[in-house]
Amino acid sequence: MEIKGFSFSAVEAAIKKPGRLDLALILSALPADVAALFTTNKVKAAPVLLDEARVKSGRVRGIVVNSGNANACTGEQGMVDAIETARLAAQGLQIPEESLLVASTGVIGQSLPMDRLRKAMPSLASACGSCGFDSVAAAIMTTDTFPKMESRSGVAGGVPYTIAGVAKGAGMIMPNMATMLAFIITDAAIDPALLQKSFRAANELSFNSITVDGDMSTNDTAIILANGAAGNVPLLEGTADAAQFVALLNDLTLSLAKLIVRDGEGATKFVSVTVRGAASDEDAKRAAMAVANSSLVKTAFFGQDANWGRIFAAVGYSGAQVEQHRTELFFDDVQMVKGGLFVGGDAEMRGSEVLQKPEFTVTADLHLGEGSATVYTSDLSYDYVKINADYRT
Amino acid sequence: MEIKGFSFSAVEAAIKKPGRLDLALILSALPADVAALFTTNKVKAAPVLLDEARVKSGRVRGIVVNSGNANACTGEQGMVDAIETARLAAQGLQIPEESLLVASTGVIGQSLPMDRLRKAMPSLASACGSCGFDSVAAAIMTTDTFPKMESRSGVAGGVPYTIAGVAKGAGMIMPNMATMLAFIITDAAIDPALLQKSFRAANELSFNSITVDGDMSTNDTAIILANGAAGNVPLLEGTADAAQFVALLNDLTLSLAKLIVRDGEGATKFVSVTVRGAASDEDAKRAAMAVANSSLVKTAFFGQDANWGRIFAAVGYSGAQVEQHRTELFFDDVQMVKGGLFVGGDAEMRGSEVLQKPEFTVTADLHLGEGSATVYTSDLSYDYVKINADYRT
Repeated sequence: MEIKGFSFSAVEAAIKKPGRLDLALILSALPADVAALFTTNKVKAAPVLLDEARVKSGRVRGIVVNSGNANACTGEQGMVDAIETARLAAQGLQIPEESLLVASTGVIGQSLPMDRLRKAMPSLASACGSCGFDSVAAAIMTTDTFPKMESRSGVAGGVPYTIAGVAKGAGMIMPNMATMLAFIITDAAIDPALLQKSFRAANELSFNSITVDGDMSTNDTAIILANGAAGNVPLLEGTADAAQFVALLNDLTLSLAKLIVRDGEGATKFVSVTVRGAASDEDAKRAAMAVANSSLVKTAFFGQDANWGRIFAAVGYSGAQVEQHRTELFFDDVQMVKGGLFVGGDAEMRGSEVLQKPEFTVTADLHLGEGSATVYTSDLSYDYVKINADYRT
Repeated sequence: MEIKGFSFSAVEAAIKKPGRLDLALILSALPADVAALFTTNKVKAAPVLLDEARVKSGRVRGIVVNSGNANACTGEQGMVDAIETARLAAQGLQIPEESLLVASTGVIGQSLPMDRLRKAMPSLASACGSCGFDSVAAAIMTTDTFPKMESRSGVAGGVPYTIAGVAKGAGMIMPNMATMLAFIITDAAIDPALLQKSFRAANELSFNSITVDGDMSTNDTAIILANGAAGNVPLLEGTADAAQFVALLNDLTLSLAKLIVRDGEGATKFVSVTVRGAASDEDAKRAAMAVANSSLVKTAFFGQDANWGRIFAAVGYSGAQVEQHRTELFFDDVQMVKGGLFVGGDAEMRGSEVLQKPEFTVTADLHLGEGSATVYTSDLSYDYVKINADYRT
């Protein structure tokens, strides 16, 4: 992967404990257009509050990100620390401090160990350019078991460009972005309005369509930087080149989102939940999310139990318009429910076979309209409980 | 416990498997005033649909209830079977079939084994009066580990009366009554309008204020029968005697609801979640439910981890009005968060000590208004996963 005008750095600051990369930098050689989406949790971490203010300028130079500490519920000191983090990095890089965004992930409620950050900052700046984007992917992991990176290549007006992204997830993953960080960069030049619009749309279909446990964190952040270093004429809405960019961006963010679900805490299954025939797209998403978030449904996935009754019940309480006698349910292409009734025969056996696979689709057809949505989820396993019961100890 | 004018029966019909009581009857010697609340799930089981119609008459003679099969998602046949169940029991008792309600709990999507029910019905009718209310409590259990029964005594106009109730729960417990059945009976005479109003209010504070896993079933039913056999002058709203009845009813339903949480699938903790200082009571309940339903919070309870950050995050995403810097959090009387910040010192240690107890309170004070609510929940343990992954196998 080659992406023009971006450089990276990742070092060990021993923020939570020594022995791993936990402080990283994404730097654009030029001011980059920025679009960003943040947690809708009313309890927001300091870096989120700082970034919300800084992205208003429309252009930034980069992002400093740490794992091991979320700098959340840390009050005024948290904001002081977030600002200092950006300032320290900016000083080393000799760029304006306001041109850097910050992001943090990890334990809530403890102040950042600024002494360790101060100590690590010079090496973060000096290492810039010596690391790949994959080092950033590694440095932002918390309980993730593997780094998550994707890239796509496109051509605009004959000029090749790249979109690349890294993400971290693992627990507290839920629509509207739970403990999730995603940083997308592209060297394509793109009209700022189109960047905003397409990034918002891509998020809705990807990071806002995944759930591991229904929780939503204080730190969720998705940022895209477009620095135009590829040298293309800026992409404008309504052109074929822009359509390609949007398609690539959607594909990339969806791939990252799926990686997050695959790495959901304790996950042994990857399940796509599609609701179609709903009265509206919103209803479809509501129903799909209710299924994807149900602890009873998710434990049945873990138990490889074709328990369509729990899915039917979740659709029923989702708040979506449902007419029981119209509803159909499928595991992959095995129909379990028709006209609101279990189809009988060998469906139970064939449905169970589907659930033994590591990856399958649950589909509910409500037969009420044209609304549809797909969300992605995992199962609820012993290990989910183990990981989250022991996380801090 | 003595309760005038009610008799009971419980037999083995081997509905799911032999070896236990699974068919029960509650019969009033006189037509009893009835109030009832049913699941708000749009996927409703046949007995719910039948009862919703039958309670409109305002008076019934009793309830036939089975465990082992929910008669849910069973279509027209399900309704035919529910009607036949009531008819068979009514024939044996020589009472009008419309005067009996029915309730079912157990596996979804399989038709009731009517042959076995037909065979068991004569003994159900003939055994009537030979069993106690506790046999009914035993017969309605599914994954419950103990029967749930409570009674209270009051005096109205110098005449003693009794209120008694049985309930079953275990999994799929969530506000607005998840897989939960509760049958309350009283020999007090009470104005029908007051019966409706007080039962609805009692439900809101009890069965609608508990959650085990956030799921809501197709069969939830709470019914109260008041047959007036105690002989008191009917209780009228605004009197001291009525106030006593309401207090006793609230106390009884809350006790039953707490028993359901204590017996939540795999539960090792009983946790009361109180939100106070909210902008409204609705906001307080929303925030308390978000905390009580969070898988991350509940695994932390299981891990005895004083992880106030997860609680703070759940309050933040609940949709309730929250101002981070005003929020306070407590485990029992140990303050963890003040002005939105961790209090530090020995709070972590003292908070952890609270979580080692089998029963404790989590309190969030939002400092925004006068709204308050308390809900009751359990932890999320290995055994929850085990029970629900293996339930049908």
